Amino acid sequence: MSTEAADWWGTAVSRVSPGLIELRGHPVQELIGKVGFGQMIWLMLRGELPEARRAALLEAALVAGVDHGPHAPSIAVARMAITCGVGLNNAVATGVNLLGDVHGGAGEQCVRLLEEVVEEGDEAVARWRARDRYLPGFGHRFHSYDPRRDPLLHLVAEARSDGLVPGHFLEAALRVERIIHPVPMNIDGATAVVYAELGFPAPLARGLFVLSRSVGILAHAWEESGQGRRNKGPLPPSIQPTYLG
Amino acid sequence: MSTEAADWWGTAVSRVSPGLIELRGHPVQELIGKVGFGQMIWLMLRGELPEARRAALLEAALVAGVDHGPHAPSIAVARMAITCGVGLNNAVATGVNLLGDVHGGAGEQCVRLLEEVVEEGDEAVARWRARDRYLPGFGHRFHSYDPRRDPLLHLVAEARSDGLVPGHFLEAALRVERIIHPVPMNIDGATAVVYAELGFPAPLARGLFVLSRSVGILAHAWEESGQGRRNKGPLPPSIQPTYLG
Amino acid sequence: MSTEAADWWGTAVSRVSPGLIELRGHPVQELIGKVGFGQMIWLMLRGELPEARRAALLEAALVAGVDHGPHAPSIAVARMAITCGVGLNNAVATGVNLLGDVHGGAGEQCVRLLEEVVEEGDEAVARWRARDRYLPGFGHRFHSYDPRRDPLLHLVAEARSDGLVPGHFLEAALRVERIIHPVPMNIDGATAVVYAELGFPAPLARGLFVLSRSVGILAHAWEESGQGRRNKGPLPPSIQPTYLG
Amino acid sequence: MSTEAADWWGTAVSRVSPGLIELRGHPVQELIGKVGFGQMIWLMLRGELPEARRAALLEAALVAGVDHGPHAPSIAVARMAITCGVGLNNAVATGVNLLGDVHGGAGEQCVRLLEEVVEEGDEAVARWRARDRYLPGFGHRFHSYDPRRDPLLHLVAEARSDGLVPGHFLEAALRVERIIHPVPMNIDGATAVVYAELGFPAPLARGLFVLSRSVGILAHAWEESGQGRRNKGPLPPSIQPTYLG
Repeated sequence: MSTEAADWWGTAVSRVSPGLIELRGHPVQELIGKVGFGQMIWLMLRGELPEARRAALLEAALVAGVDHGPHAPSIAVARMAITCGVGLNNAVATGVNLLGDVHGGAGEQCVRLLEEVVEEGDEAVARWRARDRYLPGFGHRFHSYDPRRDPLLHLVAEARSDGLVPGHFLEAALRVERIIHPVPMNIDGATAVVYAELGFPAPLARGLFVLSRSVGILAHAWEESGQGRRNKGPLPPSIQPTYLG
Repeated sequence: MSTEAADWWGTAVSRVSPGLIELRGHPVQELIGKVGFGQMIWLMLRGELPEARRAALLEAALVAGVDHGPHAPSIAVARMAITCGVGLNNAVATGVNLLGDVHGGAGEQCVRLLEEVVEEGDEAVARWRARDRYLPGFGHRFHSYDPRRDPLLHLVAEARSDGLVPGHFLEAALRVERIIHPVPMNIDGATAVVYAELGFPAPLARGLFVLSRSVGILAHAWEESGQGRRNKGPLPPSIQPTYLG
Repeated sequence: MSTEAADWWGTAVSRVSPGLIELRGHPVQELIGKVGFGQMIWLMLRGELPEARRAALLEAALVAGVDHGPHAPSIAVARMAITCGVGLNNAVATGVNLLGDVHGGAGEQCVRLLEEVVEEGDEAVARWRARDRYLPGFGHRFHSYDPRRDPLLHLVAEARSDGLVPGHFLEAALRVERIIHPVPMNIDGATAVVYAELGFPAPLARGLFVLSRSVGILAHAWEESGQGRRNKGPLPPSIQPTYLG
Repeated sequence: MSTEAADWWGTAVSRVSPGLIELRGHPVQELIGKVGFGQMIWLMLRGELPEARRAALLEAALVAGVDHGPHAPSIAVARMAITCGVGLNNAVATGVNLLGDVHGGAGEQCVRLLEEVVEEGDEAVARWRARDRYLPGFGHRFHSYDPRRDPLLHLVAEARSDGLVPGHFLEAALRVERIIHPVPMNIDGATAVVYAELGFPAPLARGLFVLSRSVGILAHAWEESGQGRRNKGPLPPSIQPTYLG
């Protein structure tokens, strides 16, 4: 037994020994059938089981972000991957790999913005706008009004009324929205409000988006796998890319 | 407008136009806060909303597979990725990329085995055993008895009593277990029973495992990101690999 | 010191200790500036340094496969990845991940075909054609005559004249071409001839294609990084995918 | 024909039409067998064919970085991937995906440092040291003196004598080394000198390292594929990770 090697991989997430699997201190058999998938996500990321209604709010945000059509790079590349003869897991990995700072990072950045607005007020907004004319979580290149904004904010407002969340991240987001009117909050902003209200640190806004979008990536990859294409390019074969040289 | 290009990316999964996001025919605002994450996964993959109790059974299987410790290659590589300076999404993608035929494919293979046993009976088992002494979904290199088997099978039996699932995949799996006694069903076998009973085709057993394990991968990557290691190798730096040349 | 852990990562590829790096038994300082990149690739994969002219033939095949335009899925996804805010390495990885059985596997399959033709003659061709009407390495969906065929085969013929390669894989490939006339050899067939003549086992035909195509993937990703697009979808934003639901 | 879609994928890297493949303006048949792999890499990234001796210097740097043993995360994860049942390309992609800012970014950062030292002199060094006590490209956690330093710098000095490179990046690097004595240049520093002297922009230092290290990743993945392990964890199965909860 090498104590040093065993320590190198030490973790508080899970303990596994013959016949035993403990996840965040809970034997797995006490979790199966007892907690929902949203609660399990929370437990694994935070180390504690959430109240059911707080987990339901988390699930609402996870539901909201699953898909935005095959135009989204994360979805498109997974569909292309499937036609190249790799496994379904490789196709999902390919899509998830694209959820970088630009495609998947706005939620994380918006949580940071909201944290600063909560602490400092409107000055934080001015500082962010001086750096960049876009504010993460606000405005959408495609939707003038993002249909996911209202139902998510409504759920947060309700949760605040019921004392389930503090509410100041919601207030901060609405204040930002008033300042930059008429640019409304988008999906990244609305889910950032949810995640921040529930106490998730900023980087997990991206992590949670990864879990959410993986569902859409998988659904599209699976649909593509039934269509029989091989080596699907971005354009139909009859359209050849322009040569710029 | 290029009809040809638009058709090339045609899909029945989602429709997006300015102000509108429809997922499997449902406006997204009618889903947010109304359906749980498990139901949403089902809707996206199957095209129809499941009854809540059938979705709960799906969630039990998703909960069961989230993690098996940092010894699992999918988990370990995600932790290593984080220490190399890539994004949280890249770390999760790295882990998911490893859920191939050997690491993530046993559930898919077990669904196929069970389908054949349902159709042909014991002959199918003999044919599979003639090909390979291991049966996918049975036996575990680490647990002599997998603690996730009983709670999952108990939930399926309950669902069958309530008329929620047909039950013949459960029967088939138990028959296989009797034939190869004393080798018990493992997590891949027990989740295969759940997925097959709920009507998921075999390849989605791997797809669903991807969604499930992504949670553990993310939790471990997140923990590692707080530990400050750089370029984490598989062994502590003091242990040097043996040279075999 | 854990002998067991050190053995677990044992390798004959490289030995590293403080102040020492040996690659396939050669101190790295004796390789730098002394061997070309093609020779180094050969050394690492085969364990021995090749003669310069055999390495040059390998390089000809590596040169031939670097790129086939942004229509190739491997190239397109790397360009899309760059616009999503991930690193250049993540973009290259995304492209390489797509070189699966369909996109990157034809060379490997063609080496196997040629090996069987060398051993069994025309019967092997009949058997392969009975399984599938396409033969790996022959015919191209886009080029009626692949411009990379002639120069590669010419180099192999020359090398055979000079006694550098045995020549029977070239003969086998030409025999297949006569049998299925007028379908000519393509890039996968011509590089398979090169790799087989040089003694590379079939799976390394895919491995070498990975090294070759990585160059084109990187060049395209790098070009895209200078163009400033964000979240590049497969189609320009004005073209919306068709909804098939 | 959709001009808009064709323009969306416009590129100056390659032009492909039936029977024609042009790479950076050169018909592919005029490159095969005429230019080495190093020259081809240069052509694809820069758009022009290099003189043979400058390409040889590039190859020396590519040779130097191929491998640093299975302790390097990029190598280890590729070996693990192979045992999980994914393709050789997926294994290489997994390794390349880890060459992020920490694992693969030091060369890029060192080129930037050298550019600033060339422009501003010692002040740039002071500024970088004020930000971080480590300078990218200098010092090695494992080698007190990196065996790859001397042969690479010697080649650059020779190339400067022959008028092939200007030499001021070499001078800058040596000046930095004197300032922070006794911490010597490492592989990232020495290759950064090569790349900068040859006129590659900083981000391509990472890109070139990706091409270089891919060779070692492939060699290790290939070796592992012959060893028959399944689901290789970071530690031998007998060593269990410590639970920290």
